[in-house]
Amino acid sequence: MAEEASSLQLNNRERKSDGPARNIRLTLEFDGTAYQGWQVQAAGRTVQGELEEAVFKVTGERLRVTGCSRTDAGVHARNFTANFYTSSSVPPERFHYPLNNALPEDIRVKGSIETEAAFHSRRSALAKTYVYRFVNGDHSPAIGRQYLTLVKGRLDDRLMQEAVQLFPGTHDFRAFMSLGSSAQTTVRTIYQASLQIEGALYELSLTGDGFLYNMVRIIAGTLIQLGHGSRSLQDVRDALTAGDRLKAGKVAQARGLILEEVFYEEADLQRSLDQGGPVSK
Amino acid sequence: MAEEASSLQLNNRERKSDGPARNIRLTLEFDGTAYQGWQVQAAGRTVQGELEEAVFKVTGERLRVTGCSRTDAGVHARNFTANFYTSSSVPPERFHYPLNNALPEDIRVKGSIETEAAFHSRRSALAKTYVYRFVNGDHSPAIGRQYLTLVKGRLDDRLMQEAVQLFPGTHDFRAFMSLGSSAQTTVRTIYQASLQIEGALYELSLTGDGFLYNMVRIIAGTLIQLGHGSRSLQDVRDALTAGDRLKAGKVAQARGLILEEVFYEEADLQRSLDQGGPVSK
Repeated sequence: MAEEASSLQLNNRERKSDGPARNIRLTLEFDGTAYQGWQVQAAGRTVQGELEEAVFKVTGERLRVTGCSRTDAGVHARNFTANFYTSSSVPPERFHYPLNNALPEDIRVKGSIETEAAFHSRRSALAKTYVYRFVNGDHSPAIGRQYLTLVKGRLDDRLMQEAVQLFPGTHDFRAFMSLGSSAQTTVRTIYQASLQIEGALYELSLTGDGFLYNMVRIIAGTLIQLGHGSRSLQDVRDALTAGDRLKAGKVAQARGLILEEVFYEEADLQRSLDQGGPVSK
Repeated sequence: MAEEASSLQLNNRERKSDGPARNIRLTLEFDGTAYQGWQVQAAGRTVQGELEEAVFKVTGERLRVTGCSRTDAGVHARNFTANFYTSSSVPPERFHYPLNNALPEDIRVKGSIETEAAFHSRRSALAKTYVYRFVNGDHSPAIGRQYLTLVKGRLDDRLMQEAVQLFPGTHDFRAFMSLGSSAQTTVRTIYQASLQIEGALYELSLTGDGFLYNMVRIIAGTLIQLGHGSRSLQDVRDALTAGDRLKAGKVAQARGLILEEVFYEEADLQRSLDQGGPVSK
């Protein structure tokens, strides 16, 4: 998290030198197909990189934009929260207009507001909803294929539906994490988990207080292997209780994953859970 | 239609020289973003070109594949019908498997069957359904933007809904045609026209016995200009009765257009009309 610390220093320096900088909160939608994920990398295009460049064009300031989550290469987001501190005179609630003009069309800023100085897109988040979508058949559709994973072979729907119900609650999810995570604890709480099946389209939805590295994609991969018969319900139970990575499944492809929602207010989270899934599509 | 004539010769020659060639009918879905439309051009990638190359890889025969419609550059299709005559021993109902292996992932063959020798994807078609989708707002969504046109500025929904009801019936649609069409008559029958509005998303659906060059996109452009107040209901009536191209609107962007369905059987068409729109999505 060295990157995180330096970003805070940058923001603090910015705030001290330019007087009362405002904390601007953005809601983004992006198609991750062309990006190496959210976070700026040594090489390759990233959503954060594009956004910081757009902020520079609009404000003239080289600023660090903080995101609610690192997303992997190829992962999409429908409502991604980001924030940055600026001394710009652009009205906060109008910031998204010039930003959209400066951004490529696969990244859109849906709205912008000024928020309290202490707001931090990642640390202030209470919960997130991810949706993993896959289609079961011989071929993926051509239209919308960027947002779906193809899963061939017969799936046992009933068994998969049963397994999804094992995830809600507080568990040690270390069996559902890829190496390379810097998380200090692997215990997370899942508030809601569902698998909706409509014809050949499967939509796994998970709302939780946090997600480990690749956690949603490993849960999706586990359910798919269960559906294919190469994992059992007992394997899934063992993965959740004994933390055995080998009992869980492979990391499912990135393209089926969408960050749907980030929650910062208890009331918003509760409303979404009452409705049984993501509030906005 | 010189191209059409030579394609028939090619097919006939194929049928004569190789004995009883079978007429294979394909249902395709394609994302038109990367293509110069359906029809093979002097330069640029086309859906027909990709498909003929795939047919060659699978059958070893250089065949002309006939399509139900020329679609413009950037236009999509969810159910596009094509057919070709082959002497290949690949079972007709399994042709789509090797074709999909040979095709790029933005073109998918959803199914294949053998059909009667006289079947012609374009001439045998009774009707087609096109859907034109646009979003009204400041920005297009990032996810799915390839399949939507952005329309900025306030729209008068009620007026647009009223105007859509002028289109069903048999009219001379010459005011809704771009130059360059080789159609012998400009009279067409629209069986069904609807404009569904869900939040910021507008979906214009038209089912008709045939469509002139750019006809759906000009109808969409006309409705949009009506919604903006730069055309009146009387202009639309005049365009339909007097055939005045200037009373109709501009050609709306290609990316919002999807060929949803082609009908070859009265019963299928009737079923779709009874349901009030495209049968498959």
